[in-house]
Amino acid sequence: MTRTTQPSWTAEPATCLRVTDGFRLADVDPRATTGFDGDKETGEVALKSGLVELSHLQERLFAASRGGDSRDSVLLVLQAMDSAGKGGIVRHVVGGVDPQGVLITSFKKPTPLELEHDFLWRIERRLPGAGMIGVFDRSHYEDVLVGKVRALATPDEIERRFSAINDFERRIAQHGTRILKVMLHISYEEQRERLMERLDRTDKHWKYNPGDVDERQLWPEYQDAYQTVFERTATDIAPWYVVPADRKWFARLAVQELLLNVLEGINPQWPVAQFDVAEEKQRLAAT
Amino acid sequence: MTRTTQPSWTAEPATCLRVTDGFRLADVDPRATTGFDGDKETGEVALKSGLVELSHLQERLFAASRGGDSRDSVLLVLQAMDSAGKGGIVRHVVGGVDPQGVLITSFKKPTPLELEHDFLWRIERRLPGAGMIGVFDRSHYEDVLVGKVRALATPDEIERRFSAINDFERRIAQHGTRILKVMLHISYEEQRERLMERLDRTDKHWKYNPGDVDERQLWPEYQDAYQTVFERTATDIAPWYVVPADRKWFARLAVQELLLNVLEGINPQWPVAQFDVAEEKQRLAAT
Repeated sequence: MTRTTQPSWTAEPATCLRVTDGFRLADVDPRATTGFDGDKETGEVALKSGLVELSHLQERLFAASRGGDSRDSVLLVLQAMDSAGKGGIVRHVVGGVDPQGVLITSFKKPTPLELEHDFLWRIERRLPGAGMIGVFDRSHYEDVLVGKVRALATPDEIERRFSAINDFERRIAQHGTRILKVMLHISYEEQRERLMERLDRTDKHWKYNPGDVDERQLWPEYQDAYQTVFERTATDIAPWYVVPADRKWFARLAVQELLLNVLEGINPQWPVAQFDVAEEKQRLAAT
Repeated sequence: MTRTTQPSWTAEPATCLRVTDGFRLADVDPRATTGFDGDKETGEVALKSGLVELSHLQERLFAASRGGDSRDSVLLVLQAMDSAGKGGIVRHVVGGVDPQGVLITSFKKPTPLELEHDFLWRIERRLPGAGMIGVFDRSHYEDVLVGKVRALATPDEIERRFSAINDFERRIAQHGTRILKVMLHISYEEQRERLMERLDRTDKHWKYNPGDVDERQLWPEYQDAYQTVFERTATDIAPWYVVPADRKWFARLAVQELLLNVLEGINPQWPVAQFDVAEEKQRLAAT
């Protein structure tokens, strides 16, 4: 099934935002609205109509795994610098579908128990089952990002992790999980503004952590670490997309389009009844 | 904080739908719109405006547990005969808030592993943490409903379970969880229509299970079992509410009001910053 993209898209986000050979993060403008030929207002209308479509596709994905024997599932991995809008994606894109079909995990600093295991142990436990859309707010990529920038692991260990990630993602893709990895890309200036807003508003203080500024001071190191992540882990079965995120409305719309594209690729079908429909109607009518 | 109820409510659902001494399920009309003096259209408008309020309260509940040290959480237990609309409540009432603050569990027939443990073992594992709204689509009450009707346990064991449930609910309430137990009450006739619709539509077949008719044939036994559940487990710290559910719009609105009432009772506050705001502003501005 090929979907007619919204009239305002001049290029498919699945193509124009995808990390391919020779990609350089430094070349991406965080304020861009790549592939979208419309303003904020047009974007918000498109987001709303996309939600209805996403919701229908999600229900079919879920149904196919229940009544039928489909193993299809979707895993959306969200990575970004602080305040780039991961939470907003979860709320405004994923939040539009039936919450019973979504498994959201927000990965924090590993607990002592998690640290006893390999870094993929806690990830494995939160993978979406058949019919589900899993969402990772941060992920195993933290272990090759903060792990590297903060030297929490040796360079050899970081190398091992890259290989382990590729093996792991191939395995779950072969089982039936479509992996969609998204980096929300904001600018250094935009992050300052957003963090400042959190400090300015008492109802936003809880979202602020002094550690956010510490991480910010390592901005170039993180950008480099992301570049390496793309070079090592952008694969055909688990591609990376870099979404310009200074404009929240665009980031949400783009991630929605990427999700729609994945679901349309699956093209889930209503399962065929495993019982005799006419007979069941008679049994029911007799009650 | 006392909330001004919507103008169309003539009585608080928290009062008029509550199971109190002398309650008889058989006396409740499943088509009623108890306490609400409006039609479907008014109801849908009220549902929409209630969602905004619910969303704000949920964010404050979540924030209070993050930045602050609140242990408050909410547990919504949904019980009903098949097709009464539990899924619709999750989708249209709970689905309106940030999915990151909600933990939904749909309890099925226990697995072999779950059966190795006491019936409350799997329940305990899915309790909402601080700041979260937990939703149980079916619950530990199945073990005293189907458990009794299908004689899956001895009468003595059912008795033991009632005591165990009351002890358990008291304990989690003392820790900070507000428990809201809702039975969606549909009529025998309405259930026939809804099941028939699932059989009539190929896109609904996956929601139908031949076992649904088997359970339906035990309707009076289930109604009796619910009556006993109310008599044994309607407590001050974990009250039961019976919501007439033949009209979906009313059931959704009523459960929304009940949830709002619980959240307003908690009255969660934005946490106070645990850091020096002025100092952080300076640090941030310097970057």
